[in-house]
Amino acid sequence: MPLDTLGDRRRTHYSSDIKAELDGEETVLFGWVQDIRDLGRLIFLTLRDKEGIVQLTIHKKDASSSLLDKVAGVGKEYVVGVKGRIRASREAARGAEVVPTDIKILGAVKYPLPLDPTGRVPAEIDVRLNARILDLRRPQTRAIFNICNEILIASRTFFNAHGFVEIHTPRLIASATEGGAALFPVEYFDRKAYLAQSPQLYKEQLVTVFEKVYEVGPFFRAEEHDTRRHVNEFTSIDIEQAFVDADDVMAILEQLTSDVVVHLTQSCRGDLETLGVELKMPKLPLRRYTYDQILAELQGKGVKIDWGEDIDTPAYRALQDLHREEYYFITDWPTKTKAFYIKPHEDNPELSYGFDFMYEWMEIASGGTRIDRKELLIQRLHEKGLDPRDFEDHLNTYEYGMPPHAGWAFGLERLLMVLLGIENIREVTLFPRDRYRLTP
Amino acid sequence: MPLDTLGDRRRTHYSSDIKAELDGEETVLFGWVQDIRDLGRLIFLTLRDKEGIVQLTIHKKDASSSLLDKVAGVGKEYVVGVKGRIRASREAARGAEVVPTDIKILGAVKYPLPLDPTGRVPAEIDVRLNARILDLRRPQTRAIFNICNEILIASRTFFNAHGFVEIHTPRLIASATEGGAALFPVEYFDRKAYLAQSPQLYKEQLVTVFEKVYEVGPFFRAEEHDTRRHVNEFTSIDIEQAFVDADDVMAILEQLTSDVVVHLTQSCRGDLETLGVELKMPKLPLRRYTYDQILAELQGKGVKIDWGEDIDTPAYRALQDLHREEYYFITDWPTKTKAFYIKPHEDNPELSYGFDFMYEWMEIASGGTRIDRKELLIQRLHEKGLDPRDFEDHLNTYEYGMPPHAGWAFGLERLLMVLLGIENIREVTLFPRDRYRLTP
Repeated sequence: MPLDTLGDRRRTHYSSDIKAELDGEETVLFGWVQDIRDLGRLIFLTLRDKEGIVQLTIHKKDASSSLLDKVAGVGKEYVVGVKGRIRASREAARGAEVVPTDIKILGAVKYPLPLDPTGRVPAEIDVRLNARILDLRRPQTRAIFNICNEILIASRTFFNAHGFVEIHTPRLIASATEGGAALFPVEYFDRKAYLAQSPQLYKEQLVTVFEKVYEVGPFFRAEEHDTRRHVNEFTSIDIEQAFVDADDVMAILEQLTSDVVVHLTQSCRGDLETLGVELKMPKLPLRRYTYDQILAELQGKGVKIDWGEDIDTPAYRALQDLHREEYYFITDWPTKTKAFYIKPHEDNPELSYGFDFMYEWMEIASGGTRIDRKELLIQRLHEKGLDPRDFEDHLNTYEYGMPPHAGWAFGLERLLMVLLGIENIREVTLFPRDRYRLTP
Repeated sequence: MPLDTLGDRRRTHYSSDIKAELDGEETVLFGWVQDIRDLGRLIFLTLRDKEGIVQLTIHKKDASSSLLDKVAGVGKEYVVGVKGRIRASREAARGAEVVPTDIKILGAVKYPLPLDPTGRVPAEIDVRLNARILDLRRPQTRAIFNICNEILIASRTFFNAHGFVEIHTPRLIASATEGGAALFPVEYFDRKAYLAQSPQLYKEQLVTVFEKVYEVGPFFRAEEHDTRRHVNEFTSIDIEQAFVDADDVMAILEQLTSDVVVHLTQSCRGDLETLGVELKMPKLPLRRYTYDQILAELQGKGVKIDWGEDIDTPAYRALQDLHREEYYFITDWPTKTKAFYIKPHEDNPELSYGFDFMYEWMEIASGGTRIDRKELLIQRLHEKGLDPRDFEDHLNTYEYGMPPHAGWAFGLERLLMVLLGIENIREVTLFPRDRYRLTP
């Protein structure tokens, strides 16, 4: 059963189906009027649907007056249904056009629109985000989210093939999951709850049931960032696995990244062209740099970071020419720079099995081997200034048979940014949320 | 590269790989000790991993004293790595057992456990939910979430095949999306936000960009339910599509349900057996009953519902023998029973194009043709006692070229309940959230 219908008009084609070989065939199309040009004898109308655009050509002398009346009532971004005949045409972009016999207006437009949805009139990001639904109609913006869709398809294919089980952990939690980072409080009936920052503790627990788990979903950080790479609601791609360590999950992470690039190259040619992006295949295995090596590189650039301190974005940017177009790992971070659940080296507890996954100067994922002993976890909570009593439920699970385990969290929006060379995370988020923006 | 490693021990098999044909081969396994029985000359140890269980048999006279010491230190639910040799055995459940040569304890257990994770000792639901991570180790509970994983695989395969684009709509919103139902307030920096109850308005807007969209994710209702079919955080499977009506999206919904059942029948045989469930194929097309027909059925059962009133669960239960094991639609609901965005019939505005998707007495999805004209939407908001000013951003989008559209929302947990014959939604939610439960 065809799924696109409208009353007695049943869609026969999408724009991308229209080609010279169908010359003479009847067609029914639906879409938005992208452009109208009245050339006197001819009217050209560009119709946009989910698959692209197609040209409608109206020869005034051949057209009924009723059709011409309808066309006269149509403006840019109007939604229309079109009945017509396909005509091979050398002039038309796809080698064929449609000569309409009937047009029906399905949705009108009130002018002026707050934004030009073709993208030909440039607009500031805030103007664009205020009229996001129009901004999303720009070919470039749509391309981003088509690619996002394909990243998710490739990722889930990867997880399914590797035996990961999809989990749905709670967003409403009674206390901080990660500690440190700020939480959004929620009025939960007569008490206070918080929005989860990550599935971290739940996914660690769930390896005791499923061994390999993954989750893709929204998480929340109440940090008052005001940068181009932070939003307060973001999409995390998380995995956690039992009986493995950081090296193993780094191998999974680089393989996933490589699979995603291969998949996009094959399935998003048009959208990548629209964005003018040529994807480069990461060469596996990616390079692993230790924290100490990065510190040495920084020193070479005249940037002094005391051992044990975190590395900030300006520092990474100083290394940009050393890591141009490079995906790489940074390993062996000082334990004190990492979250409480990251495992310290057995022979040198100052060093940890935490890692960051980087592209050029930006962190796009982080992970590590996790602590699997309760006493060590309690010690680390204390060292982080956190109260083990707030983690009682979680700590208890370490007495029920906790295997060694490791995992990571990948920022979906960050991945889109680096793949597509986009500098503002708001561009790759359908309806971004930041400190100043809660609408649309 | 094998992904399961642990130091120098690399996993060679999962429990389900162990079979008579591998007689004599070396093996390395990881898992949890499900059971230990010391029979004097022999010790039987059952090892559980993500794929199932396998028997380890230790012949005391052949075993090293070091191995026997290690086995003596192992208890139920301990995490162990096992090295050994596969031995064909008629007595072992899978036609083969493993004779260990070495055992390493990777995670200990502190007794008593708050719950018997084999499920042999029955426990009240609250006791089980308090120790959920142990409850999840019961074969029945694990089976539910393996099946949940396969439902999601089948659903996304369906959506991808039909050209739906995955969307991620905001969970943090500035005002009520649906009106009516209660919202959880969030302290969002210096102002108030709310947790989204559904992606409803965003998905409607997004059909103007992608035509066909879907989202799977957590949503929140602050209703003070205290029933076995409500939780306050749930997983919604949502679609929305342009240029179609309720009939079309009902066809999609029944096809998806059918595809899911076919997929589960093929890929979850073991888990369905564990649960003692035999899935019945829904026969398409499913029956469509009008609201009026259901009212007449109710009258036949002596249950009086005034026309225009909603139908409550006790009423549906009165019809149980008429709809036994039946998936069905109820269409043509009175407009006033439905949300403001559901389209009224053109020729009789008292009736709407809203529908419910039912199994026996339970609603598992609802949807309909949506209103696509701004004035009518404003009128319906007023009729519902809602203030159009709270919906300004959304209403504006109806002036940018809004196509006719329709969609539905499917409750993932509700689907699991009806497929598996489970009566409490908390059983099919990893970590359920209700008015009284915010942990674990």
